[in-house]
Amino acid sequence: MAATEATLAGTKTYNAATEHAGMSLVDRYRAVRAFTERLTDGLAPEDMVVQSMPDVSPTKWHLAHTSWFFERFVLMEHLPGYRPLEKTYLYLFNSYYQQAGERHCRDQRGYISRPTVAQVMEYRRHVDESMVRLLESIDGEPESSLSRLVTLGLHHEQQHQELMLTDIKHVFSVNPLRPVYRGEASVNESMGTRPMEWVSFEAGVYAIGHDGPDFAYDNEEPRHRQFVEAFQLADRLVTNGEYLEFMEDGGYRRPELWLSLGWDAVQTRGWMEPFYWERRDDAWMMFTLSGMRPVRLDEPVCHLSYFEADAFARWAGARLPTEAEWEVAAAGVTIGGNFVDDGRLHPAVAPAEPGLRQLYGDVWEWTSSAYAPYPGFRTAPGAVGEYNGKFMCNQYVLRGGSCATSRSHIRPTYRNFFPADATWQFTGVRLARGVEHGSAR
Amino acid sequence: MAATEATLAGTKTYNAATEHAGMSLVDRYRAVRAFTERLTDGLAPEDMVVQSMPDVSPTKWHLAHTSWFFERFVLMEHLPGYRPLEKTYLYLFNSYYQQAGERHCRDQRGYISRPTVAQVMEYRRHVDESMVRLLESIDGEPESSLSRLVTLGLHHEQQHQELMLTDIKHVFSVNPLRPVYRGEASVNESMGTRPMEWVSFEAGVYAIGHDGPDFAYDNEEPRHRQFVEAFQLADRLVTNGEYLEFMEDGGYRRPELWLSLGWDAVQTRGWMEPFYWERRDDAWMMFTLSGMRPVRLDEPVCHLSYFEADAFARWAGARLPTEAEWEVAAAGVTIGGNFVDDGRLHPAVAPAEPGLRQLYGDVWEWTSSAYAPYPGFRTAPGAVGEYNGKFMCNQYVLRGGSCATSRSHIRPTYRNFFPADATWQFTGVRLARGVEHGSAR
Amino acid sequence: MAATEATLAGTKTYNAATEHAGMSLVDRYRAVRAFTERLTDGLAPEDMVVQSMPDVSPTKWHLAHTSWFFERFVLMEHLPGYRPLEKTYLYLFNSYYQQAGERHCRDQRGYISRPTVAQVMEYRRHVDESMVRLLESIDGEPESSLSRLVTLGLHHEQQHQELMLTDIKHVFSVNPLRPVYRGEASVNESMGTRPMEWVSFEAGVYAIGHDGPDFAYDNEEPRHRQFVEAFQLADRLVTNGEYLEFMEDGGYRRPELWLSLGWDAVQTRGWMEPFYWERRDDAWMMFTLSGMRPVRLDEPVCHLSYFEADAFARWAGARLPTEAEWEVAAAGVTIGGNFVDDGRLHPAVAPAEPGLRQLYGDVWEWTSSAYAPYPGFRTAPGAVGEYNGKFMCNQYVLRGGSCATSRSHIRPTYRNFFPADATWQFTGVRLARGVEHGSAR
Amino acid sequence: MAATEATLAGTKTYNAATEHAGMSLVDRYRAVRAFTERLTDGLAPEDMVVQSMPDVSPTKWHLAHTSWFFERFVLMEHLPGYRPLEKTYLYLFNSYYQQAGERHCRDQRGYISRPTVAQVMEYRRHVDESMVRLLESIDGEPESSLSRLVTLGLHHEQQHQELMLTDIKHVFSVNPLRPVYRGEASVNESMGTRPMEWVSFEAGVYAIGHDGPDFAYDNEEPRHRQFVEAFQLADRLVTNGEYLEFMEDGGYRRPELWLSLGWDAVQTRGWMEPFYWERRDDAWMMFTLSGMRPVRLDEPVCHLSYFEADAFARWAGARLPTEAEWEVAAAGVTIGGNFVDDGRLHPAVAPAEPGLRQLYGDVWEWTSSAYAPYPGFRTAPGAVGEYNGKFMCNQYVLRGGSCATSRSHIRPTYRNFFPADATWQFTGVRLARGVEHGSAR
Repeated sequence: MAATEATLAGTKTYNAATEHAGMSLVDRYRAVRAFTERLTDGLAPEDMVVQSMPDVSPTKWHLAHTSWFFERFVLMEHLPGYRPLEKTYLYLFNSYYQQAGERHCRDQRGYISRPTVAQVMEYRRHVDESMVRLLESIDGEPESSLSRLVTLGLHHEQQHQELMLTDIKHVFSVNPLRPVYRGEASVNESMGTRPMEWVSFEAGVYAIGHDGPDFAYDNEEPRHRQFVEAFQLADRLVTNGEYLEFMEDGGYRRPELWLSLGWDAVQTRGWMEPFYWERRDDAWMMFTLSGMRPVRLDEPVCHLSYFEADAFARWAGARLPTEAEWEVAAAGVTIGGNFVDDGRLHPAVAPAEPGLRQLYGDVWEWTSSAYAPYPGFRTAPGAVGEYNGKFMCNQYVLRGGSCATSRSHIRPTYRNFFPADATWQFTGVRLARGVEHGSAR
Repeated sequence: MAATEATLAGTKTYNAATEHAGMSLVDRYRAVRAFTERLTDGLAPEDMVVQSMPDVSPTKWHLAHTSWFFERFVLMEHLPGYRPLEKTYLYLFNSYYQQAGERHCRDQRGYISRPTVAQVMEYRRHVDESMVRLLESIDGEPESSLSRLVTLGLHHEQQHQELMLTDIKHVFSVNPLRPVYRGEASVNESMGTRPMEWVSFEAGVYAIGHDGPDFAYDNEEPRHRQFVEAFQLADRLVTNGEYLEFMEDGGYRRPELWLSLGWDAVQTRGWMEPFYWERRDDAWMMFTLSGMRPVRLDEPVCHLSYFEADAFARWAGARLPTEAEWEVAAAGVTIGGNFVDDGRLHPAVAPAEPGLRQLYGDVWEWTSSAYAPYPGFRTAPGAVGEYNGKFMCNQYVLRGGSCATSRSHIRPTYRNFFPADATWQFTGVRLARGVEHGSAR
Repeated sequence: MAATEATLAGTKTYNAATEHAGMSLVDRYRAVRAFTERLTDGLAPEDMVVQSMPDVSPTKWHLAHTSWFFERFVLMEHLPGYRPLEKTYLYLFNSYYQQAGERHCRDQRGYISRPTVAQVMEYRRHVDESMVRLLESIDGEPESSLSRLVTLGLHHEQQHQELMLTDIKHVFSVNPLRPVYRGEASVNESMGTRPMEWVSFEAGVYAIGHDGPDFAYDNEEPRHRQFVEAFQLADRLVTNGEYLEFMEDGGYRRPELWLSLGWDAVQTRGWMEPFYWERRDDAWMMFTLSGMRPVRLDEPVCHLSYFEADAFARWAGARLPTEAEWEVAAAGVTIGGNFVDDGRLHPAVAPAEPGLRQLYGDVWEWTSSAYAPYPGFRTAPGAVGEYNGKFMCNQYVLRGGSCATSRSHIRPTYRNFFPADATWQFTGVRLARGVEHGSAR
Repeated sequence: MAATEATLAGTKTYNAATEHAGMSLVDRYRAVRAFTERLTDGLAPEDMVVQSMPDVSPTKWHLAHTSWFFERFVLMEHLPGYRPLEKTYLYLFNSYYQQAGERHCRDQRGYISRPTVAQVMEYRRHVDESMVRLLESIDGEPESSLSRLVTLGLHHEQQHQELMLTDIKHVFSVNPLRPVYRGEASVNESMGTRPMEWVSFEAGVYAIGHDGPDFAYDNEEPRHRQFVEAFQLADRLVTNGEYLEFMEDGGYRRPELWLSLGWDAVQTRGWMEPFYWERRDDAWMMFTLSGMRPVRLDEPVCHLSYFEADAFARWAGARLPTEAEWEVAAAGVTIGGNFVDDGRLHPAVAPAEPGLRQLYGDVWEWTSSAYAPYPGFRTAPGAVGEYNGKFMCNQYVLRGGSCATSRSHIRPTYRNFFPADATWQFTGVRLARGVEHGSAR
């Protein structure tokens, strides 16, 4: 496993997907597909079967479903004579595409032992062969609806790479043996974190959303105007140490700090600390992909629900940013940070230099914006149109990517979304406040 | 009961609450309190005990809780020497105010037979006596935090008046005897409805929200700027006839028309028609506060969930308006329409004259806006601060009031809110569309 | 209310039903029906609507259902020209008779405000008039299938009289105001209870079950032979004091004392004391039909589930009797004890004289016998055949009647039955043990 | 897999456990443990992880739990210096023994990927080494509490062998690929089944239960007297063909045939045919351990719940036997039939010769007897005392073993037990009737 670690740490040498911009489509296809399989290094077949809660999917299912996406939407539609390896897979590995036919119940994915991991890998080979053949046949051609569909499939697969990590983390966490997925990556030794500072932005009409030829999901479009009142954004993420102050100040026992549904969640689920934290002999420990280890105060707090992020912000006399505010701030920032490519698989301490930091990577940042269509939003025709739009209800937007996201996958306009009670993703908090009435709010 | 009908139809003669503007606070207090009790005319004590689902509260509970509000927040805080009639009521009739102490479980309100209706009326008398004494003592004084609190209490009571109607409608609807609450009010005989037309609005930065000395809830403030892209709004509400076309076109069987959570609701609850509709011998009937009667095609469709409103709009090639769009449109419209004051207790056919109609009254109009704080929103200090802010999660804003709302209760900036699956309120649809790309969307 | 008390205490003067033996059928009908209505003295209409849990039915429903029984099975079948008062009642007030047509959901009885109490009393009058007419027309005739059916209906109504008491007790118990149903009846002042002693019975083949012309339910027949090994029975019921010793010895915390399903119930429901007991300021209180009062150590313990009765017996080094053992012991005992006729509505301290006491009245005694058909058991043809047989699964037999049972209703062969987790009935424990191996077990 | 088949078919050559009687304890230990592992032939690691419903345990868990039983109760108590391989296993693989410490939640066994199958096999080796050493050290010694404990462990393991088969059958059945566990065993070609005939037994006091030096579970003791009325027993099991007549006569649509809880199950679970049956193109198919195949009319009907068995018997004008009746009938019958040793893993057509047949093997026969302690029943002291007694509530006794039971495991006094709604075991029906009143009932 040490070897694997080394490879993951020296990521740029093997995750060619990072260099998407200059690569041919077929090479990008190969790179993304290979990285998916690298993520299973060190997993036993048994690990890849388990669904430890309805939100989690088995590793084996992710491996198959990402192949199904190419088979169903690319090969069956665009490669004459293509024959599915096994018709039942079309049913088993459809996630939620109503227009792509019937599908297996999401919460019963862990009941399916066959196809085995080996058979799923065969399925991947079967799809890969046809895909590479198809992509080589169009190599050098200008962008087309087909090439855009394949690019969508690659971004889809990158999303599932992130889920493979968050899901296996959950699977291992419910096992009393607390297995280790990766030996601990090197930790950046820090001298502590600089105190948080506010960065100011002016009121005005801003252009929000994606425009131009590069890939983006339909939910990032169209680019449109929004008026944003003057606001301030914290220059870094909230840390475990700051969150502990909230806890020690009775944060989980004071209903006035919480949304009503959030307080219900606190009561019915017995929330008393962030997900994956555990009290052992007077010390706070946390479960990570490297197993159990002490909570480090200067690391970004992680695995918070929207409810906890919101309650913390209220306690701190601030609030969460809107997604427009986040995007305004991100407009001038170069993408960089702690991504899956870095192999750490855990949020890192903020860099020592001042200024707006950690916008990308580390943890997805909860915004106060409900996930909703932009003015003029249109879904793509057909089943792939179900990718985003139909989930625009009772979810909040998160921005910036995490330590489990590929660097090549993220954009300033990228909109991730989860329900307010989700905690198994790498999710954290950046504070915001208005400047209205001459005060901080 | 005929007499009652007559009175309700000739509403202006008795619902003095309509004339709030020119009345003293104590007179407004008397008028609002009296109207609450008028709503119980014709109900038996047995009717007032039942909670037919968790969202519904017994009539008796509404009568008591609105009194509790004055007792707890006004009398106990501002009337020296005030003694609660019965300490247990402080527990029994607190709805959700965490800071006002422990409270009885919401979904067990129907288990409480005592205090009886007569005892609850005694409780109202007890509170009224002290309130009138207090209000008379400050009569003529300028507005104060106390008078603002009382005004809040009156608006609170008006909200519960509306709930008393929607809740007793539900209670009666689950009874196979299908009792009648009010004999049928006169129906405006119409010659059919004019075809829907679009009214256009220009893009620009608009001021949204409430400002000024008149009463408004905290969630309507502060007034702030929003950029609104050009849009069009339907000039009237969607009718039963139009909704039937959606149904006959397979609306409830086509997942591509629905949000994902909406489709779940269709499947798990077996939705096939609007709430309160029933198929009898090849004809559509509906349950109303006047009992069962045929569905009339030119009446506004009612008791739709957000999911149904959204699916209908998608089917119609349109969308729901945002709350900002609705408010922009309402800015120039005089408040008027079919309110509880009119005694009809059911949405009415649109007036025959052209132009933007039915903005107020008839049915609450679903907007596509998730219920969220305005920039700079602040809750009031103390328990009354729990009135609105803590519910800003997983709810949608509705605008305009309904046939169960008091005319004196509604404003252009008024934000009502319910979860996307709620159907027992008087809720309907007005369509909107953008004008981007030269097309209608 | 004091007057009512007096009447209840001097019961024999008014509960003519006690004297069944010598009365004509029509007089017995009048007496039983009148007693049902006496039980509503002091209840407000609001009290009679509430269903505080699925096992509980509203008082109003009991009043109507017992009338439905006569309407549906007697009048509609045997009185030519009989017209039901209201067809919907046939649906609303059918409890579980599949062959008598569709019926309203049991757990939604509390949602039905109409018919009101007054209308239900009209329904009773309507049924009574026809019943009395019918019964007078056959007065003096020999026993017939019709007279047997009416007798069944009277016993059915007596069962519901007991349920009216246990159900209103539950309804009042969940109300924080803890209403009083009856002012406290006179308590027999005792000097404490005699220590429990064992009464021995010999092994042998015994005749078990009912035979002969007197009324019995079908489940008590046919009389048949059972071999019963030698056993001993406690001479009185287990007391609160004895049960407290079990509690203080960790009874609710020791899984080895419990059946597996019983231990599940302890864990999931948080059982720590008998139902209706409450700890207040270091003292044990209990809710009774006379309100809250201290637990008296020498009264029989009551409102135990089968699980608690069984665990207590195991802790005590004994076991519960089988129903055959109970019936063998009861064979020679005259029926007598603390019944509803006595107006106490609560179990009483055991009489001071030695010998087998409290077999009848006070509390239903859990037996270890699963409720099953006797060899050769046959159900009656038609819907009344659903009275008993179809419930012979996952229930335990209880014997002897309670303080809420009519004296004229009980017999040595009477088999009551409830699921193992039921606690809202007046249920208690008498211990038994074998004499095998020369020891006590 | 063909080879495995052959071996399973020629079973007597390798399942030495069959010959228990003449074998030393250590050899019996080796034989039983080896047979457990043979049952995993052809399973992939993925198959052994899945828990397809709460009643089912993963194969991997059975492999580990049976080892835990020896580790926890034999090695840790009786082998000085024994060291558990891994302390967490003591927690993970305890099933329900409260007195053996905390344990992992039963319904979350499918969430545990580690230990992997290979690690579980290591665990088995670790336990086997110590067990064989211990057993060799006492070889030749007379029976002792230790040898009795080991024998209990072997019978325990044989029970789990049966569960491994019924559980993997369920796991495969929920997979749309419908995997095959074993290629189809040879089917006895029959000329159809002889019509069912009744065998008569006389009334009398019979001795029921186990006595003597051979192994039996505590629940089979003590041997005691029961009076059994005269009865008749069907000479063979009910067939699929006979059950189809019940279905075609509306068996699943007629509430009068069902126990009340049974009818609830029919309604809420949508039962319309036996478990594992499926309608495909007008033909009835069934899922077996050899995959999907047509329903054969002369095979015994299988996978019935108690509710279905009881309803069928009522429809047939008969009833289920009591366990005493079954044992009376079995007293004179030599053990023989279709067991797991035969490798068929499916019930077989009744032998052609007349007389009482199929008492053993094929399917467990539901009796009408609730699972209850025999008079004088005592549990063993300590945790193994939890083996049987604590489950004596809401279960029914089944007799005779099935096609998944080892021949060496069954006895005439053997009492198996399951709740009335269980269907995933090999469970079927033999009819009985009384001879009372000169008629057949």
